[in-house]
Amino acid sequence: MLYFMSDYTEGAHPKLLEKLCAENLVSLPGYGDDPACEAAKAKIRAACRRDDLQIALLVGGTQTNLLAISSMLRRYEGVVAAKTGHVSLHEAGAIEYTGHKVIELEGVDGKLPAETLRRCLEGFYADANHEHMSFPGMAYISFPTEYGTLYSRAELRELSALCREYNIPLYLDGARLGYGLMADGCDVSLEDIVECCDVFYIGGTKVGALCGEALVFTRQNMPAHFVNLTKQQGALLAKGRLLGMQFDALFTDDLYWRISRHAVDMAMQLKAALVEEGYPLYIDSPTNQQFVILTDEQRERLSRAVAFSFWERLDDGRTVVRFATSWATRPEDVEALKALL
Amino acid sequence: MLYFMSDYTEGAHPKLLEKLCAENLVSLPGYGDDPACEAAKAKIRAACRRDDLQIALLVGGTQTNLLAISSMLRRYEGVVAAKTGHVSLHEAGAIEYTGHKVIELEGVDGKLPAETLRRCLEGFYADANHEHMSFPGMAYISFPTEYGTLYSRAELRELSALCREYNIPLYLDGARLGYGLMADGCDVSLEDIVECCDVFYIGGTKVGALCGEALVFTRQNMPAHFVNLTKQQGALLAKGRLLGMQFDALFTDDLYWRISRHAVDMAMQLKAALVEEGYPLYIDSPTNQQFVILTDEQRERLSRAVAFSFWERLDDGRTVVRFATSWATRPEDVEALKALL
Amino acid sequence: MLYFMSDYTEGAHPKLLEKLCAENLVSLPGYGDDPACEAAKAKIRAACRRDDLQIALLVGGTQTNLLAISSMLRRYEGVVAAKTGHVSLHEAGAIEYTGHKVIELEGVDGKLPAETLRRCLEGFYADANHEHMSFPGMAYISFPTEYGTLYSRAELRELSALCREYNIPLYLDGARLGYGLMADGCDVSLEDIVECCDVFYIGGTKVGALCGEALVFTRQNMPAHFVNLTKQQGALLAKGRLLGMQFDALFTDDLYWRISRHAVDMAMQLKAALVEEGYPLYIDSPTNQQFVILTDEQRERLSRAVAFSFWERLDDGRTVVRFATSWATRPEDVEALKALL
Amino acid sequence: MLYFMSDYTEGAHPKLLEKLCAENLVSLPGYGDDPACEAAKAKIRAACRRDDLQIALLVGGTQTNLLAISSMLRRYEGVVAAKTGHVSLHEAGAIEYTGHKVIELEGVDGKLPAETLRRCLEGFYADANHEHMSFPGMAYISFPTEYGTLYSRAELRELSALCREYNIPLYLDGARLGYGLMADGCDVSLEDIVECCDVFYIGGTKVGALCGEALVFTRQNMPAHFVNLTKQQGALLAKGRLLGMQFDALFTDDLYWRISRHAVDMAMQLKAALVEEGYPLYIDSPTNQQFVILTDEQRERLSRAVAFSFWERLDDGRTVVRFATSWATRPEDVEALKALL
Repeated sequence: MLYFMSDYTEGAHPKLLEKLCAENLVSLPGYGDDPACEAAKAKIRAACRRDDLQIALLVGGTQTNLLAISSMLRRYEGVVAAKTGHVSLHEAGAIEYTGHKVIELEGVDGKLPAETLRRCLEGFYADANHEHMSFPGMAYISFPTEYGTLYSRAELRELSALCREYNIPLYLDGARLGYGLMADGCDVSLEDIVECCDVFYIGGTKVGALCGEALVFTRQNMPAHFVNLTKQQGALLAKGRLLGMQFDALFTDDLYWRISRHAVDMAMQLKAALVEEGYPLYIDSPTNQQFVILTDEQRERLSRAVAFSFWERLDDGRTVVRFATSWATRPEDVEALKALL
Repeated sequence: MLYFMSDYTEGAHPKLLEKLCAENLVSLPGYGDDPACEAAKAKIRAACRRDDLQIALLVGGTQTNLLAISSMLRRYEGVVAAKTGHVSLHEAGAIEYTGHKVIELEGVDGKLPAETLRRCLEGFYADANHEHMSFPGMAYISFPTEYGTLYSRAELRELSALCREYNIPLYLDGARLGYGLMADGCDVSLEDIVECCDVFYIGGTKVGALCGEALVFTRQNMPAHFVNLTKQQGALLAKGRLLGMQFDALFTDDLYWRISRHAVDMAMQLKAALVEEGYPLYIDSPTNQQFVILTDEQRERLSRAVAFSFWERLDDGRTVVRFATSWATRPEDVEALKALL
Repeated sequence: MLYFMSDYTEGAHPKLLEKLCAENLVSLPGYGDDPACEAAKAKIRAACRRDDLQIALLVGGTQTNLLAISSMLRRYEGVVAAKTGHVSLHEAGAIEYTGHKVIELEGVDGKLPAETLRRCLEGFYADANHEHMSFPGMAYISFPTEYGTLYSRAELRELSALCREYNIPLYLDGARLGYGLMADGCDVSLEDIVECCDVFYIGGTKVGALCGEALVFTRQNMPAHFVNLTKQQGALLAKGRLLGMQFDALFTDDLYWRISRHAVDMAMQLKAALVEEGYPLYIDSPTNQQFVILTDEQRERLSRAVAFSFWERLDDGRTVVRFATSWATRPEDVEALKALL
Repeated sequence: MLYFMSDYTEGAHPKLLEKLCAENLVSLPGYGDDPACEAAKAKIRAACRRDDLQIALLVGGTQTNLLAISSMLRRYEGVVAAKTGHVSLHEAGAIEYTGHKVIELEGVDGKLPAETLRRCLEGFYADANHEHMSFPGMAYISFPTEYGTLYSRAELRELSALCREYNIPLYLDGARLGYGLMADGCDVSLEDIVECCDVFYIGGTKVGALCGEALVFTRQNMPAHFVNLTKQQGALLAKGRLLGMQFDALFTDDLYWRISRHAVDMAMQLKAALVEEGYPLYIDSPTNQQFVILTDEQRERLSRAVAFSFWERLDDGRTVVRFATSWATRPEDVEALKALL
């Protein structure tokens, strides 16, 4: 079976395992207060070219989203997101479980247009009844989006300026950050993200780690007693080393960027083949996720030899499916898949 | 100043005050466990022609919505509602504060079409990822809606059948129930509501009471220890008599229905005059709330002598406003308003 | 049946009903933003001799406690209270439902001694693991306590100084405030409470109102968008007039203090008779609640003619019960009860 | 520096790393729905000698506690625990953040005596006001306790019988389960725990894993849609393999029991040396945690060469500290520590 089901179907990049194994018996304090975590954070700061960033290493994406959002919102605020955002749709109501509304707006290709956000904010404050409504207290975007698309630098800056105008934080979910920043045509850099966002995370789980996300606060704005909040959420890892050592390895010798670029290369080869073979793309994604429309016949035939993901049902006997590549995708698997198309 | 701002701008119907005053010094147990509350509930059951209804008397509408919804949903469920629903928009995120998502669907004239709800439910269970999503665990409708419109009996039955097919409760917010059931052309009766809904409330605050809503569970389905949940929510009134005596008076000699009909009469006179004078209606409402489009000039002129509510801004120098009548509206005030149009 | 069951078994003092009836048909804006509420607040400020107090009028005690506490605590904080505190024991976990721990300490006669609170605070910060614990973020006391006892001015000042030393608010639950301040031997004044506490409430429900508590913020420290939080909690009354007019009447011509003093007089007469007849007091209360130890025989005999409250079971065939007087207690009822002892 | 600070200061037992490395590039579905997790669960069921157990693999202890407790309690219930319980004291209010009270009782040596629990339950239902209180809806115990002590089989059975009498689940926190079951004099077996408890967890993090706890439901009582609740809590690991492979290795060839026994052996050697050298034990623990009273002088001297944990300050210039052994403790380190005493 060829595996293109998602970007979290294998373990960790071997370099990460090597690090974990090599330092396995070194004794370290618990709960992330250790040299391994410090080293990882230092390397992330260096990659961001900013030495004043506050960083928390967490285990998974939903956990990171809900901690970041619930700890930065005030009680009367909700988070604004595109309807297709991960926090809107696919986190089992995790944000709401912390007591906050996800204020859902119509997105475009998975993105939240600044103009849409502006209408929401202006409309809210123009509404005489807004004291009876959830305040828009944060904007959530993902990069790449859930549809593999990317904001341009201009779009990101426009969103950032708008959020600052309204004095709300801009939060970027970077579960697949590497696959976005390494995409062809991406004019956004990590430094742009640091500059534009108040908080964002660098995804590890989907980019070569067994688990782990690095949550970065860019304006000395980490909520007070964040360790306590992390513990309260059940998100504080006793052996913080597991996260520290993995991020240390990922940010050593540009590993994070090299494996991200590899996944994009694999995806672009696959995309070219799909287009050449006449498969309609559901959306034009420059990143590691490719959304394709299959007929029922194609879907059934391919699924015998290839693992891919159901995305959504179209009306007419056709389905959108996702093929995902990752740091672990082998060129020969792409070749084999191409041969099946 | 003529008051058409809302249906909660005066105190209580005099009959209710009379009752409260007459029995003021009678000693009664606290927390609603008293003969006054029992008498009120018995009269409500009689009005519903069902003697097995479980009823809780609560203070206000948002409180009632959040208690009903949060106590009936399971932790993995959200409540489905039209985007314009009161719980979606105008309760300051109260549902989310209890940990549950409001799953918002596009409504039509304030209503949630059964077809829309069906697509939501079918789509949810057809989605291979639905275990990562908020389950649609209840349907919320309002009657009349926030736009003064009404479901027909056929529409209500269709929603009810659908909810039973999916085994989720149908909840009807009746903040203005009397103004709906007494509307011309309404083919829904209170017994239909009892039959179709799993839980609903009969609004008192907007229909003649100082405060008070009667939450009715129709299938022996009141959540266990509902008094405890009410207390936990800060919603348990020590002097339950305040609610009991008012609902007793409202459901004596059809007072609730008579004052509701009066408000509808007043609204229909006003509506006829508005139409006659060429004011465009924003929506065709048969109930006590009339939504009208005013030019800026009209709005400014009328607001000098009449209190009404801003509803929403249209794009072109025009605004939607609401005129509301109530049990307290005097015919001479309607005449005076008509003279100003 | 003689009624000494609680201080909320009758309706409202007639002056309050008069006010509600007299102004019943005056049209007023909703949600507490009206002249009636403003007038009440002005009179409360005058009684406190401070014109800068921020005041919110709410419906009930648990509602007031949970709103005050949950809106002032930060997410990593809990509220410290005596084990016997109302928030600890008798509010159905309302504080916890808002996500915060009640940190329970051993009290003395219902009071939280400053020395006990100091040990808690010092111990917390001395504990190397305190980042994994709920921070003590507020102190809760009641006045009178749940056992009818009172803090002296010196005790209150000591608590206040301690809270300021640790920069946490001191919150006073005044559900029966009048019955405390009017007690013989009470050396605390309303101005002392304003001076010592960061937030407190003046109870109406148990002191002559149908419902209503006035929450007072003394340091310009009302949480931002408190109306929104009130709505979110389901605690915002549409007809704020119900609270405004009642508090207006209570704070006109010292009514609140006069009826409180009356209840204390009644309680002191009852207490003297109990002592004279040899009934052991469970606790020496100078306020309207009297806790007495009854044998099973006494309890059974008295309960045939008198309604009183079970408090707690002692081990040896004896029970603690409570007799409560109120603004509504008639001297002849006290005489009748005395005759039965 | 000799490390006796805790049982989570090293990585994972080498067998676990071997397994992770060996199968690193095998492609597996996400979210725990994979053969690695299934294999682990099968081995745990075999160790429990019950093939009908429902098991969820989670990341950490607080996460496991809060998911188990919050998903099994109904909204009106709290969890009963000893004051010294981990959920009471050292989880940053995690249980309360899910909306439930921890009902804290006085324990004895870290244990919750059945007699104490019985008084709580009987007292609750005998209290006429219990509808205004948090219902005791579950009992929480830890094994070993936070003080290293153990329940006997008789004690466990008594607790179990009591919980069944009151129809509430008995939950056992087994963060250090192996170190308890392998202790000298322990007459409890894993099968006893399965028999007595409704839900418990087998701790991995402190017993040789990088992270991971196996939550076991013993009566087909796993809450519905537990995966959804796990996701909602931010606790669902994308790469479930990380947990599955580690538990598979731990439950292969009795590894879990062998390394647990090793830690106990190390602790017993240390304990014997402490006693011999005249150090007073704070508590007599048969498990891997040893609590010792040190004078300030001893503490300072030892801390130059040994890492141990502060536990609590006694009044008189003495401190309770904890020495913990683990699967990773080397005999030569114990010898070195003994030489320093």
